[in-house]
Amino acid sequence: MKTNLKKIVPIENLSLVDKVELRLKQYFKDNNLKIGDPIPKELEFASALGVSRTVIREALLRLRTIGVIESKKRSGMVLTQPDIIQNFEKAIQYNLLGEEALVDIFELRLILEMGMADLLFARKTPEDIAVLDKIVSKQEKEEQDTTIFSLEHEIAFHGKLYEMSRNTTLQRFQNLLLPVFEYVHDNMPEGAKDYKYSKGEFVTHRDLFKILKDGDAATFREAMRNHLEPHFDRILAMVKL
Amino acid sequence: MKTNLKKIVPIENLSLVDKVELRLKQYFKDNNLKIGDPIPKELEFASALGVSRTVIREALLRLRTIGVIESKKRSGMVLTQPDIIQNFEKAIQYNLLGEEALVDIFELRLILEMGMADLLFARKTPEDIAVLDKIVSKQEKEEQDTTIFSLEHEIAFHGKLYEMSRNTTLQRFQNLLLPVFEYVHDNMPEGAKDYKYSKGEFVTHRDLFKILKDGDAATFREAMRNHLEPHFDRILAMVKL
Repeated sequence: MKTNLKKIVPIENLSLVDKVELRLKQYFKDNNLKIGDPIPKELEFASALGVSRTVIREALLRLRTIGVIESKKRSGMVLTQPDIIQNFEKAIQYNLLGEEALVDIFELRLILEMGMADLLFARKTPEDIAVLDKIVSKQEKEEQDTTIFSLEHEIAFHGKLYEMSRNTTLQRFQNLLLPVFEYVHDNMPEGAKDYKYSKGEFVTHRDLFKILKDGDAATFREAMRNHLEPHFDRILAMVKL
Repeated sequence: MKTNLKKIVPIENLSLVDKVELRLKQYFKDNNLKIGDPIPKELEFASALGVSRTVIREALLRLRTIGVIESKKRSGMVLTQPDIIQNFEKAIQYNLLGEEALVDIFELRLILEMGMADLLFARKTPEDIAVLDKIVSKQEKEEQDTTIFSLEHEIAFHGKLYEMSRNTTLQRFQNLLLPVFEYVHDNMPEGAKDYKYSKGEFVTHRDLFKILKDGDAATFREAMRNHLEPHFDRILAMVKL
C-alpha cells in the first residue's frame, strides 16, 4: 500500500475498534457509497483490515446503533440514512442530562418559538387555523373557574404551532423535548403566577391565535416575545460565561 | 427473581438485545442511578437476566455508543451524561442525510438566527462587540474590489453571533451544521447576487453590528429578517405538506 501523508489520521488514544470505525467511514467516503448501497461482509472487512472478526463486529454494531447501516434479509448490510432525531432521543431517554444541558435546551425552545414565525405564516392552512381555534376555546372553557397554569393546554397550543411549521425535524425535536419542558415547569418558582408583564398586558393564546389568523410575522414575533416574557426573564437573569 | 407484572414491557418485534436494552434502562430508572454511579458487570447482568454474555455485551455496546455508560479503569462501568450533540454529529458525519433532512436543517438555521436576538442583547460584552467590529471591518476591506459572496466571511460573522449566545449546545450545533450550510451555499441558484430586496435596501453585517451595539432585540430581529430574506424566499417557496 502506498502511504499518503496528506490523509494521515491521529491514532494516539484510539482503541482498535475506534481505528476500524474510522477506516470504515473513510471506505464509505472513498467509494462514494450512497443510501441503500450494500457493504462487504464482516469476514471480508476482517481480512482486508487484518483484524479479528470480533473487532469488526463491534465497529459495525456502533454504526448500526447510530443508524448508518442496517441488515437486510436478502442483501446483507446496506447503508441507511441516519435518523438524527432518534439518536438524540436515545441519549435523552436515559434522564442523564445535567443542569447546564437542561437550561441550554430550554433556551433552545424559546429561540425556536421566537424564530419560527415566518414558517407559520407561509404554511398555515384554514384547517390549521380551525384546529388552533378549538384548542384555544377548549382552554378558555376549562380555565374559566381557575387561574391554575395547565401544562396540558400549553403543550396543545405550542405543539400545534410546531406542527404548523411543517418541519419534521423541528416537530420531532419538540416532541422529545417535552420531558425537559415538564421539568422546567415543575420547577417554576413560587409567585410565577403573579408575574408583572413589562407592557402591562399579558399576550394570551387567544391573542397569538388572532395575529396568526389575520396579522403578520413581525407582529407575531413581538407578541410571542411578550407571551414568553416570564421564561425569558428567568433565563436571561442567569449568568453564563 | 420475583416477577413484577406492573412493570411489564411490550415484547413483540423486539430482538433479544432490544429487550435487554429496555431492561437495563428500566433497571437504571428503578434504582434511581445517577451520573457517575457504577453499574453491575456483564456476567452479573447475564445471570440476573438469564441470557448469554454476548447478548449483554451487545446491549452494553449500544449504551456505550450513545454515551450513556463508560468504562473506568478502576471502577468498571459507570453511568455518564450522554453528549447529545456528539451523537448528532456522529450521525451527520456519514454524509447520508437526504434532501428533506437537509432542507429541514437549513430552515432550522434560519429559525435559530431569527430567534436568538434576546440572548445576544442580554449577554453581549464589550469584548464581543470589539471582535465583531473587527470581523466586519476585515470583510469590508477584503470585499472592496469584488462583490463575490464569501462563505468565509459569512461563517466568521454568524459564527460569532452563535458564540455570543453563550449557549454551548447551540454553538456546537452550529459548528456541526457548517457542512450543511456549505452545501446549501454551493447550490445557490444563479442570479442570487442580483436578488431584489422587498424593502429596497439590503441589511449588511455592518448594519446588524450597529444595531447589536446600540439598538434593541426587536429591531435586530427585523433587520436579521431582511438580511436573510433571499434564503427565506427560497425556503418558503417550497411546498411542504
